[in-house]
Amino acid sequence: MPANLKQLLDRQKEMPGCSLQQAFYKDPDIYRREMEKIFFADWIYACHISQLAEPGDCETFDIDTESVIVCRDQQMKIQAFANVCRHRGSRICPSGSSKNKRLSCPYHAWTYGLDGKLLVARLMPDDFDKSEYGLKNVSVEVFGGFVFVNLSENPAPFDEVKSKLQSALAPFEFENTRLAHYESHPIDANWKLTYENFFECYHCGPAHKEYAASHSLSLDQNRRDSYREKLVEQAMDAGISTERVEISETMSADLPQYYHHRSALYDDFKTASEDGQPVAPLLGSIKAYDGGASDIMIGSLTYLVAYADHAVLYRFTPRSVDVTDAELFWFVRADAAESDVDLERMKWLWHVTTIADKKIIEANQQGVNSRFYQPGPYSPMEAPTAGLIEWYLARIS
Amino acid sequence: MPANLKQLLDRQKEMPGCSLQQAFYKDPDIYRREMEKIFFADWIYACHISQLAEPGDCETFDIDTESVIVCRDQQMKIQAFANVCRHRGSRICPSGSSKNKRLSCPYHAWTYGLDGKLLVARLMPDDFDKSEYGLKNVSVEVFGGFVFVNLSENPAPFDEVKSKLQSALAPFEFENTRLAHYESHPIDANWKLTYENFFECYHCGPAHKEYAASHSLSLDQNRRDSYREKLVEQAMDAGISTERVEISETMSADLPQYYHHRSALYDDFKTASEDGQPVAPLLGSIKAYDGGASDIMIGSLTYLVAYADHAVLYRFTPRSVDVTDAELFWFVRADAAESDVDLERMKWLWHVTTIADKKIIEANQQGVNSRFYQPGPYSPMEAPTAGLIEWYLARIS
Amino acid sequence: MPANLKQLLDRQKEMPGCSLQQAFYKDPDIYRREMEKIFFADWIYACHISQLAEPGDCETFDIDTESVIVCRDQQMKIQAFANVCRHRGSRICPSGSSKNKRLSCPYHAWTYGLDGKLLVARLMPDDFDKSEYGLKNVSVEVFGGFVFVNLSENPAPFDEVKSKLQSALAPFEFENTRLAHYESHPIDANWKLTYENFFECYHCGPAHKEYAASHSLSLDQNRRDSYREKLVEQAMDAGISTERVEISETMSADLPQYYHHRSALYDDFKTASEDGQPVAPLLGSIKAYDGGASDIMIGSLTYLVAYADHAVLYRFTPRSVDVTDAELFWFVRADAAESDVDLERMKWLWHVTTIADKKIIEANQQGVNSRFYQPGPYSPMEAPTAGLIEWYLARIS
Repeated sequence: MPANLKQLLDRQKEMPGCSLQQAFYKDPDIYRREMEKIFFADWIYACHISQLAEPGDCETFDIDTESVIVCRDQQMKIQAFANVCRHRGSRICPSGSSKNKRLSCPYHAWTYGLDGKLLVARLMPDDFDKSEYGLKNVSVEVFGGFVFVNLSENPAPFDEVKSKLQSALAPFEFENTRLAHYESHPIDANWKLTYENFFECYHCGPAHKEYAASHSLSLDQNRRDSYREKLVEQAMDAGISTERVEISETMSADLPQYYHHRSALYDDFKTASEDGQPVAPLLGSIKAYDGGASDIMIGSLTYLVAYADHAVLYRFTPRSVDVTDAELFWFVRADAAESDVDLERMKWLWHVTTIADKKIIEANQQGVNSRFYQPGPYSPMEAPTAGLIEWYLARIS
Repeated sequence: MPANLKQLLDRQKEMPGCSLQQAFYKDPDIYRREMEKIFFADWIYACHISQLAEPGDCETFDIDTESVIVCRDQQMKIQAFANVCRHRGSRICPSGSSKNKRLSCPYHAWTYGLDGKLLVARLMPDDFDKSEYGLKNVSVEVFGGFVFVNLSENPAPFDEVKSKLQSALAPFEFENTRLAHYESHPIDANWKLTYENFFECYHCGPAHKEYAASHSLSLDQNRRDSYREKLVEQAMDAGISTERVEISETMSADLPQYYHHRSALYDDFKTASEDGQPVAPLLGSIKAYDGGASDIMIGSLTYLVAYADHAVLYRFTPRSVDVTDAELFWFVRADAAESDVDLERMKWLWHVTTIADKKIIEANQQGVNSRFYQPGPYSPMEAPTAGLIEWYLARIS
Repeated sequence: MPANLKQLLDRQKEMPGCSLQQAFYKDPDIYRREMEKIFFADWIYACHISQLAEPGDCETFDIDTESVIVCRDQQMKIQAFANVCRHRGSRICPSGSSKNKRLSCPYHAWTYGLDGKLLVARLMPDDFDKSEYGLKNVSVEVFGGFVFVNLSENPAPFDEVKSKLQSALAPFEFENTRLAHYESHPIDANWKLTYENFFECYHCGPAHKEYAASHSLSLDQNRRDSYREKLVEQAMDAGISTERVEISETMSADLPQYYHHRSALYDDFKTASEDGQPVAPLLGSIKAYDGGASDIMIGSLTYLVAYADHAVLYRFTPRSVDVTDAELFWFVRADAAESDVDLERMKWLWHVTTIADKKIIEANQQGVNSRFYQPGPYSPMEAPTAGLIEWYLARIS
């Protein structure tokens, strides 16, 4: 560990429950270490199986300096590879979706199978051993239709995450959804400021009147109890897990590698549309609108907000030490007719919320850059963010 | 002091009267030191009291990584604070003007009084002591209606500057002016190249035909004497200080923390408009057009050019090692009717002059970046710039 | 040599015939060393004498941080100078062409003769010795009408290059051509990736269908022999050098400081137009269309592709560690009437080819930036690129 990082970590220990010192949000060397220790070590959402319906369907997932190809091979197996030709390093697939019988590098046409094996390398010497030049594998796992990749050589197991979230995800049947809408919002800020923002709802009152109008945030004890009672009853009727129904809270303070709970929307809100009315057919096996919203953390870096009729997946993707993309993926039933999905009303809440957050987070970075900035205390409502920071400090130590 | 800076300073001593070595114009570490030793240590113009007429009127002043809030509080006192929330560091006021009863952070709504005291921090624990989380104070001084801030913890006194310039500024009554026009010109160059440019008029003949057409620059001794005689007479009649009337010169070679002199416009020029005719009502107690122009330096970093009917304040604001904004503020009598101020004709001279300077200064930076660049000799007409460089070298040593 | 470079070079030796390790394509310190050891040490094409027809005609050549003025002086001699005023370092000539009786700095009007001598320095002290402040000379050589400059203080001789290429260039009479068209394509990649691309035609088949349609690339032995026989015969008839006629190859593997060969276009192609038909009058003393294309390397950094009726000169100009401009210069007979030159058809091939290469090279840089990138083996068809890399490694060692 570099000496100055050691010193920063020591000093940070002396201010528990406070935001990070400035260098953590600005130093390019710390950023590079974070990529290695966190983003290239954890499971991250890459794409959804609905985008890989047929053999040859490919998606790229780009993060920092890296690009990963995820594709469905001829045996319908999902594969992932570094998007780097073994010849002279060119990217093979352009960013986005493509359909390919084989993966052929646009530079010199070295051509790989959908299993990554090098099939054609024109005019190479006779002693050239193609078997040594397959695409580099990237680990891949599918859970609930979501495809996760891990850029590490020895990825930590993903099984615990899967088994613990299984029952909560089951009624939504995400494997039977399709990507209905995608947005990417570039944010001029370090990635940690985007996560810190997402992990707490202390700012939702002041900054997100649209969110606060439908999602119950600060209720007195009486209303809290009545909301919980009602949500449990309705969720049971709807066939949604009632294992962790919590009101007036968005995330737990002790951050695990997985997490979920369901909280209540205000009365008259069936889903997260402006008027509370449905925007798409009910997901999976859900039988009714329970008036709830699930917050789900799949691994440390992927978040899902699931309503009865649609869900939004959030990925915060670092581009450099001071630029992060907030990427949003909206899902609806795979078999929903286009005419039964009201895209505009569906995307409205998290679209406006993300635009507001972009502004807030950029102002946060600007202030943090100041010589007058000093780490400040997280409030009790920001416990999940404080937990995130503890998790982060442990990870880079 | 870093070793390489020591070496650069030693080598610079061996070439007195020459421009700086390349590293001074490019090195990010030297730039950071300059911010600390000069820009975060000196008094800098922030805004004018005409922008802070009523309680709650706020202006920001942004420089390098910093942002300062300047506001008028309920007791009509002018206050200045670091624009950094004590909670998690967000900027509180957006750049520019705003009107606020209280300073409320857009992120989590921590709310401060106009005196900087933390008034509201929602849902913090009972033992949270608000008195320890007021906004960080920035020192503020008002002189002639101009509001100056100093980002240092122990600012040098501003009194000498004030007392020495008092009589020269008096007839203009800048406290009774208003900001009539503002322009900001981003210049792709190190801040020192913008100051070096501003401090000498050796380039005015070749580069500023508009300026040279009205401002007397190089007169022979006979005309010089007659211009001086005439200006002294007219200035006395007009009620303008004749303490330092100098012709064919823009600034003194020995650079103090303050400075002023009045020089002559050419015959038929009452003010700095293209045709020499008035552009606004006479300033302050001035009784007539004396055909003069005052160059005034208030502290080391703020410059004022004052004619009988308007004045232009210059601020060169570093944004990074290689970008500097030239910011111009035009002032007229506070009680001048809009119809009595001819904005287009008033702004014309310094608008075109700044556009020409931007081009010149950027070409200077490009040349200085070359391996063929070597420091060259300042001419006698550039004595003020040579003096500035000496002052600069002393300040960063 | 910096320690980490030593280590990189040692490791590179262990993988002969492979592309470079990542740091060579990204490290700003290595880039600065390359500028000193290669670009500021070698002869580089600056402009053509047709652009300097009369005394006072000036062209600038910009590379990395540098700008060079090339001009024709009153004695018709071609001169080159650093574009840096000896006063305070400003650039004197703006980028591009200009016509000047003298070289006058736009800042303070220090004025130099076209021989670089300082003629006027206004208002300098009496003891100022103008003879010590002439513009800094840059070495210049003219060969075949092409003007080359060398930014080194002790340039290597250019004589061998000239004498060895003399006979090959003679029939084209490039000294009697004129610049007909110029294009610059900024490429987001390290300069070495642009050269690696240009030096091999392994990618021409997959990436350049337009080029591959006219330039013979991979023929079987029979067709190769018949093409060679035919080209030799036709080139002799046309009066073009047949010293090095080679088929199915673009450049030799052993890279010298100079190089040339002539290869065959496919039947029915007289020149490199889409339909193979002429685009301009025959160059120099050439008597007929021989259906050939010459690849010529003049020094290490300048390339020429010459057909019977026009030629294209390529210069790859580093701007920074990760940006390089591909600059193309098209030449036709100096006395060709504009109506006899079909610009659109003439520029077509190398215009579309460069646009395709830009895309390829940028994808190459993106892949090389990945942690999964590892140097890969050059194919036999990429021998010239492998040779270039060896030459490069020797040069920076």
